[in-house]
Amino acid sequence: MFLDKIEKINDIKKIDREDWGELAQEIRKFLIEKISVTGGHLGSNLGAVELTMALHLALNLPEDKIIWDVGHQSYTHKILTGRKEGFDSLRQFHGMSGFPKRKESCCDVFDTGHSSTSISAGLGLVKARDIRGGSNTVVAVIGDGSLTGGMAYEALNNAAKLETNFIVILNDNNMSISENVGGMSKYLNNVRTATGYLDLKAGILHALRGTKRGDSTIKTIRRVKSSFKQMVIPGMLFEDMGVTYLGPVDGHDIEGLVRVIGEARRVKGPVLIHALTQKGKGYVPAERHPARFHGAEPFNIETGLPKKPRTVANYTDVFSTVMCKLGQREERIVAVTAAMPDGTGLKRFRNMYPDRFFDVGIAEEHAVTFAAGLAAGGLKPVVAVYSSFLQRAYDQILHDVCIQNLPVIFAIDRAGLVGNDGETHQGIFDFTYLTGIPNICVCAPKNKWELSDMMKFAVAYNAPVAVRYPRGQAYDGLKDFRAPVEPGKAEWIYREWEIALFAVGSMVRTAEDVRKQLKGRGYGVSLINARFVKPIDEEAVREACRDHMLIVTLEENVLTGGYGEKVLDCLNRDGLRNLCLNIGIPDAYVEHGDVEALKREIGIDADSIVQRICQVLEKTASK
Amino acid sequence: MFLDKIEKINDIKKIDREDWGELAQEIRKFLIEKISVTGGHLGSNLGAVELTMALHLALNLPEDKIIWDVGHQSYTHKILTGRKEGFDSLRQFHGMSGFPKRKESCCDVFDTGHSSTSISAGLGLVKARDIRGGSNTVVAVIGDGSLTGGMAYEALNNAAKLETNFIVILNDNNMSISENVGGMSKYLNNVRTATGYLDLKAGILHALRGTKRGDSTIKTIRRVKSSFKQMVIPGMLFEDMGVTYLGPVDGHDIEGLVRVIGEARRVKGPVLIHALTQKGKGYVPAERHPARFHGAEPFNIETGLPKKPRTVANYTDVFSTVMCKLGQREERIVAVTAAMPDGTGLKRFRNMYPDRFFDVGIAEEHAVTFAAGLAAGGLKPVVAVYSSFLQRAYDQILHDVCIQNLPVIFAIDRAGLVGNDGETHQGIFDFTYLTGIPNICVCAPKNKWELSDMMKFAVAYNAPVAVRYPRGQAYDGLKDFRAPVEPGKAEWIYREWEIALFAVGSMVRTAEDVRKQLKGRGYGVSLINARFVKPIDEEAVREACRDHMLIVTLEENVLTGGYGEKVLDCLNRDGLRNLCLNIGIPDAYVEHGDVEALKREIGIDADSIVQRICQVLEKTASK
Repeated sequence: MFLDKIEKINDIKKIDREDWGELAQEIRKFLIEKISVTGGHLGSNLGAVELTMALHLALNLPEDKIIWDVGHQSYTHKILTGRKEGFDSLRQFHGMSGFPKRKESCCDVFDTGHSSTSISAGLGLVKARDIRGGSNTVVAVIGDGSLTGGMAYEALNNAAKLETNFIVILNDNNMSISENVGGMSKYLNNVRTATGYLDLKAGILHALRGTKRGDSTIKTIRRVKSSFKQMVIPGMLFEDMGVTYLGPVDGHDIEGLVRVIGEARRVKGPVLIHALTQKGKGYVPAERHPARFHGAEPFNIETGLPKKPRTVANYTDVFSTVMCKLGQREERIVAVTAAMPDGTGLKRFRNMYPDRFFDVGIAEEHAVTFAAGLAAGGLKPVVAVYSSFLQRAYDQILHDVCIQNLPVIFAIDRAGLVGNDGETHQGIFDFTYLTGIPNICVCAPKNKWELSDMMKFAVAYNAPVAVRYPRGQAYDGLKDFRAPVEPGKAEWIYREWEIALFAVGSMVRTAEDVRKQLKGRGYGVSLINARFVKPIDEEAVREACRDHMLIVTLEENVLTGGYGEKVLDCLNRDGLRNLCLNIGIPDAYVEHGDVEALKREIGIDADSIVQRICQVLEKTASK
Repeated sequence: MFLDKIEKINDIKKIDREDWGELAQEIRKFLIEKISVTGGHLGSNLGAVELTMALHLALNLPEDKIIWDVGHQSYTHKILTGRKEGFDSLRQFHGMSGFPKRKESCCDVFDTGHSSTSISAGLGLVKARDIRGGSNTVVAVIGDGSLTGGMAYEALNNAAKLETNFIVILNDNNMSISENVGGMSKYLNNVRTATGYLDLKAGILHALRGTKRGDSTIKTIRRVKSSFKQMVIPGMLFEDMGVTYLGPVDGHDIEGLVRVIGEARRVKGPVLIHALTQKGKGYVPAERHPARFHGAEPFNIETGLPKKPRTVANYTDVFSTVMCKLGQREERIVAVTAAMPDGTGLKRFRNMYPDRFFDVGIAEEHAVTFAAGLAAGGLKPVVAVYSSFLQRAYDQILHDVCIQNLPVIFAIDRAGLVGNDGETHQGIFDFTYLTGIPNICVCAPKNKWELSDMMKFAVAYNAPVAVRYPRGQAYDGLKDFRAPVEPGKAEWIYREWEIALFAVGSMVRTAEDVRKQLKGRGYGVSLINARFVKPIDEEAVREACRDHMLIVTLEENVLTGGYGEKVLDCLNRDGLRNLCLNIGIPDAYVEHGDVEALKREIGIDADSIVQRICQVLEKTASK
């Protein structure tokens, strides 16, 4: 096993050239075996094996720097930098992250997670190198999917000014998380399908055969320019922006890659290497079902099927179903996703109403302002997006949707703790950033029926509404509690005395457990489903204050700027002196791991909450 | 006067073709006269007179839709849509906005203010049109400066898929607010300077003269491709992305523009018209000093000089000076701006340390992640940016700077109420969106010396720090209060009893007035300069609670998620039962107008605050 010889950085350089292919196969096998057990990003990593090996062969780490855009394709990099053992605890609590982390290795130079940041970060490292007088190589590795994000373009536009070396590797697998979209994708596809320099010569001659002086020349050229230009000079679009283009090159040919990286290092300026790769390369199920193997659950290697087939619906499924129903009922409903038709559950809506479905690629900012335009044009757009990715569009929500009070609906999936993807993906800030924005209405359902009811409410409501719901299994308890959804109205579930639990969304279920335990200890406990985080139901708070000594708020969001603080504000304005305990996520990023383990760690599981409530009560009693 | 005949939409169509030029001159004169009195955006409007006239002549408003990117160039559009009279109250409280507003006119179809949104919004209106079966024309007018924003690229990338008509007019004045930067700018400049089709023919022949079969062809073409390609087919970069390119055309030739707009309307797909214009056209001082006349104060028409020359330093000047000093003291300090070297005061730093200064163009997202890269490379970047524009980079602060706890300093200018630019530009959300982010330290100075001290603190501190300060005159009172800046430590200014005023930044000055008035009524009043909004000084709050019955917090930020709520949280956790009154901006957008008038309107001026404090005290006394 050549892989056994890889124990630390640069060990790969000891492997003979003729064994590189064998090592690549061993790495593939290793990745498939490990990820089949832990789950993780498979397709993108299988696609980047040779590219990563070539980078490690051509560069001198840790002096040279590699920034992995998004970062979920960095598994081979982790293997080659002495982290093989980490794969047994991949993405698990206190285990190795599925993304580059500076705290894990000196070879991880910039943490990534969200898309399209690598060229900006890389340019920063290049400028820092130049100012500090270094001569190391900096490489940003970015997928073609990430290239649809506007930041990448902003960064390329700035890179064009460089007079020192900076290498961007475009890892082009012709896929976003799902199919790629847009003009850039079509352009790259044209470049991909041009079969190389031999064809180019023929292309030039063909295109210019009829050339004569005069307007006719221009007309001819204009007519054929599309095929002409791309065949003549692949990557001209990048050259136009001031970036030297090298490629396209086979992204699975290690020797070729090593050679072109060497060539790129000699360029005094920004270089883009266009490497063609295949997502899922070498594992047939992943080649065939790239979306399913993008972020995979543990699977059976033989069949490629998940080890634990889902039997219970998750919130995404519920959203998927309600969108199809709403789409039938109301023709003005349209759906927008930023490269996530599968992840957000909009695929079924797309299949039923293809003309009313828009996948804008990885471009959350455009997605939101585009939706604002759709709403200004008289439609009812639903933007389905993960909580942490919606952060990208904060200004667009504030500036383009809410100032004009346009009826855009945000269906915010993966809100709260998401688990294994960790810090960059936890959806724990949305209450804070959204509720500061005027005109928007923010709500969270307690169970699957309420998600459906809230979506119906949102469509009927003529202003911006955000409905946020967590990753994973949809709660199917409390079925009988289905009071009509009214803006700013909470729902009383159990009405007792002493302690009032105001729980938001996913925390209603936790609050039921908390209530059971507290009742076991002899307390009277009311449970209120907050439903709305903006505006909050102040009347319900006042009502609860009348016969409850302790108000407890529960939310899966950071405490700063969250629901709890809004309740405190209400108590304060009304001069209410009840004790109040705010349960939520402390002021720190939350790492990767199983959601239940994370909840225990940060003290928002039922047991910890009960303990804290009892402490407050005891402290008060002893006063 | 032809302008007298323009009283409502489409009146321009009654003006004879030969009088268009005269009308353009009258509009210019009108704009210069009006803006010289009220202040406003002059240069961009003088540059867009003919373009706007051509649009109104070629289109049928209000059926056809024009979206003005940024929107400060919409003055001629306002004149041509019956709002001439509005110019006497331009940008004044309850007067006409300096930006397009749907509530002002049916011809304003989408509110703008921040950069690079128009193509996204326009594409939304196009899709809504197609779905609802309309046939109107939609035009997005975007400047070359705004084209450096990533959103514009995301939108173009999506527009490429269109099979129905959508017109983007690139209003290319070769300027951002200051000089333009980057690869795209260079590209457009090459297109501008190509002198048209006649040269192109020569270019082709020249480039291909030596062409022979074989590799040599390619080598030749690759060598000359840059000049070759741009001369052959202007706008190929846009064509590559799938957008039909028309141009370049003279943006001051009304007839030519009307013709090309007519041509563009017939294209079944996305079209980009490249119009070359001159910022400040027709008014010599504005042509010569485009940055000064971008957003002008009232000025003398003869001399072009401001009517009221500034005699007192503003916060931007103070920041400018301290940056130069810090730059000298510490070589690792570098500065980043998104197209605002003048507005942010970094121009002097640029002149002194050109290699350590980066203007990235209108690209806030890139600016922040680029800064994160600089910090990861061992430098100390200071990102100087207006509060409302930093909203664009919320995710980059959270995801790229703060997760890695990188020492990036945010110098946030125009924080709080900015006045005449109104809703889109008020910097009233930053405490909310920033303080929810872990690891960042957020502070605000009370006066000019403290801004300087806080910048020094920020540079010494090894983690993300945001220093936010308001637009306008730097306060030079309280000079003797200059306790060392320590993280999370407030500063006691006056120590009495009964009422404790915890004031943040600009509100310290207001609090001094409030204190004076309250003392006049016989109350004992302490004044605490909060300094830090994250982390807040909990010890100072607890201390104040001991001998003050009423705690008042004062901030120029929305109350939701602001400093006041953090103080309430502290009181609640400590079981402190003191009365607390939170003064801040209510949960609504704040329109344009004089800052003092706005403060009175929303109740954060000294008189209103005194009144509210007295109400609270009376209510309590009567209990």
